Amino acid sequence: MTPRPRTPRIAIAPSGFKESLSAARVAEAIAAGVRRVVPDAELDLIPLVDGGEGTAEALALASGGRLVRATATGPVGDPVPTHFALLGDPGALTAVVEMAAVAGLSLVPPDRRHPGATTTYGVGELIRAALDAGARRVLVGCGDSGTSDGGAGALQALGARLTDRHGRELRPGGGALHELEHIDPAGLDPRLARTELLVACNPYNVLCGKRGVARVFGPQKGATPAEVELLSAGLERLAAVLARDVAPAFTPPGREPLDLRTAPGTGASGGLGAGLAAVGARLLPRYDVLLDGLDLDARLARADVVITAEGALDHQTVRGKIPAEVARRARDAGVPVLALAGTIGPGAQDVREVGVDAYSAILPAPMTLVEAIGRSGELLADATERAMRIMALGTRLAPLHPAHRPHPLAA
Amino acid sequence: MTPRPRTPRIAIAPSGFKESLSAARVAEAIAAGVRRVVPDAELDLIPLVDGGEGTAEALALASGGRLVRATATGPVGDPVPTHFALLGDPGALTAVVEMAAVAGLSLVPPDRRHPGATTTYGVGELIRAALDAGARRVLVGCGDSGTSDGGAGALQALGARLTDRHGRELRPGGGALHELEHIDPAGLDPRLARTELLVACNPYNVLCGKRGVARVFGPQKGATPAEVELLSAGLERLAAVLARDVAPAFTPPGREPLDLRTAPGTGASGGLGAGLAAVGARLLPRYDVLLDGLDLDARLARADVVITAEGALDHQTVRGKIPAEVARRARDAGVPVLALAGTIGPGAQDVREVGVDAYSAILPAPMTLVEAIGRSGELLADATERAMRIMALGTRLAPLHPAHRPHPLAA
Repeated sequence: MTPRPRTPRIAIAPSGFKESLSAARVAEAIAAGVRRVVPDAELDLIPLVDGGEGTAEALALASGGRLVRATATGPVGDPVPTHFALLGDPGALTAVVEMAAVAGLSLVPPDRRHPGATTTYGVGELIRAALDAGARRVLVGCGDSGTSDGGAGALQALGARLTDRHGRELRPGGGALHELEHIDPAGLDPRLARTELLVACNPYNVLCGKRGVARVFGPQKGATPAEVELLSAGLERLAAVLARDVAPAFTPPGREPLDLRTAPGTGASGGLGAGLAAVGARLLPRYDVLLDGLDLDARLARADVVITAEGALDHQTVRGKIPAEVARRARDAGVPVLALAGTIGPGAQDVREVGVDAYSAILPAPMTLVEAIGRSGELLADATERAMRIMALGTRLAPLHPAHRPHPLAA
Repeated sequence: MTPRPRTPRIAIAPSGFKESLSAARVAEAIAAGVRRVVPDAELDLIPLVDGGEGTAEALALASGGRLVRATATGPVGDPVPTHFALLGDPGALTAVVEMAAVAGLSLVPPDRRHPGATTTYGVGELIRAALDAGARRVLVGCGDSGTSDGGAGALQALGARLTDRHGRELRPGGGALHELEHIDPAGLDPRLARTELLVACNPYNVLCGKRGVARVFGPQKGATPAEVELLSAGLERLAAVLARDVAPAFTPPGREPLDLRTAPGTGASGGLGAGLAAVGARLLPRYDVLLDGLDLDARLARADVVITAEGALDHQTVRGKIPAEVARRARDAGVPVLALAGTIGPGAQDVREVGVDAYSAILPAPMTLVEAIGRSGELLADATERAMRIMALGTRLAPLHPAHRPHPLAA
């Protein structure tokens, strides 16, 4: 076994803190805390996103690309300032459309949280804007959505006509979908046919059935039980009409058409996955596509220790949150993982089962959530320093041997 | 160099958390957290006290002695339920009178915090009760006091007459001391002369002068600036009259009388140190006496790591608080120290200079101080577990070598 290098290598692979810090800011705060303890550490900052809030900005930054500002229709129908990313990667120009940036729950005022009325129209507008900018590949990031329209709004913005039995254009929102009779794809943007459309989604989310998206996520978007049933019926109707009127034209000859009701990811972002799949998009497990090009596994494997972070660590963390994804990969490489969290909630200890060896909260003293959010960067750096000092203390407890110098972290 | 033993040894030497957990409860909570990570650790619980709240109970417990319940005059004159300890040590029966248990600030209702009026009368009563119980040695613990009477009340309870120029008995409290004309020691309990009276005090506290006790602590006990000056004048007067009328009879022949104004510890507990010194008490640095018999240095030196704790870690910690005392001793023995705190405040980082290698707060999420206090035992155990897992992670970062097994903490 070769001796460890003199300089400790620390990979910093956090999520953003919702409503507070982007993943890049989180990584920087952690790095600042680490440097106070191990000034010469070799740090590898790998800010990570899950497709939701902050995804476009993070991927633009990571790839050396740029954000393009735009105005588009928000979830409640008013125009909102938004953006998409053009990545800096070589090859075909890739755009990233983050659905949360134009149809996210945070854009729906609390008093207008009726998922029957919110629309993904702006997502379609952003896809067209990306195509106008020359994108040959469009990656749509799902997560943190405020809609349940099955992507109907996005399809309308892309040129499809959704009509009821009287031939009238459907009004926006999932609440109208049960009236859907026919979809005319003739007006769809012809560039779609020659564009690679990818959707980064949580494969556990499906459009219909008992675990359908309206039932699982409708309530937290503000739907009453009756509205949930109306939405579920509407999404069933949408899946059937899409399969009949739209999908066949976008299904390559000889290939089995995707089951828009239950295929993995069809329920992503209130069913946006299904709507885009009908016009040829590929639904991909989010980490497969979002971590693509980061060389994440190799970078984690090179580290002596991996630090990850998320705003909250709780029972949801193991269900596909970033710290769980990072920990699984680091564990496969035999690298220990520390997780830092703004809040540690019930079920947090489950993260140990997926490879998080230790975790810590960032709060130094009693305070309100609002104060903690306002000071999160400073608190995170301080908490990182404290955790690093405990870790360094641990290195001194390792077995002593005349041939061994202390690990650099203990210096 | 011999290999480390298989079983890690952890010394747990915390303070109590004020208004929340006794030192023994703190030690137990930390032990519970440690055991979740290192079930087979050899734990040495050493709950520590500084003379203030909880001292009598802790010393009774540690020595196999007992608490004796009593009723005595509280700081504002009403009777309060209180207690003293009879230690279980062999030899002369030793009592511990904790001044905070009968004249502490927490016994003064917030709307009656006039240190000119509060009295140490109950301290004298408890000393007599201890003598009634057969004590041959009385240790008075100082700290957390709510009085500024220079021990005048205690002397009155022990039988001294303090009179003004009209020969009238002084009313209780430091606010009357400037009227003191004469002290008649004739009625003092004759057992005092054959009793070893020890006062455990912070040697930095002195009775008079610029850093005199009324000026340093008067304001936090509720004194206005004018009251501070009145109290200071009264304590000057008390020192002069004690030196003239009382101290000579209690000073062994040939020994220089103690300077009651400025000797170390004369200012302890609002000047109680000076009053008791005048009747022959020895003022001792608190840790010299409170840690006596604990074999603390040897127990810390045997440990692989020492865990200490205090309710708050801040700029006051290095000025004689328990974590600082423990850390200095552990550092001398080359043993690393982790400190846990309910609250981390400004200046906490100073503790690293006295030997605390790492520290951590116990809060998992935003909450109020009241909630944190209510849940402190549970929060402390959980935080200990988290810190131990970070420490264990650190042991895995030590240099690898085929001849070395991981440290038991990493198992």
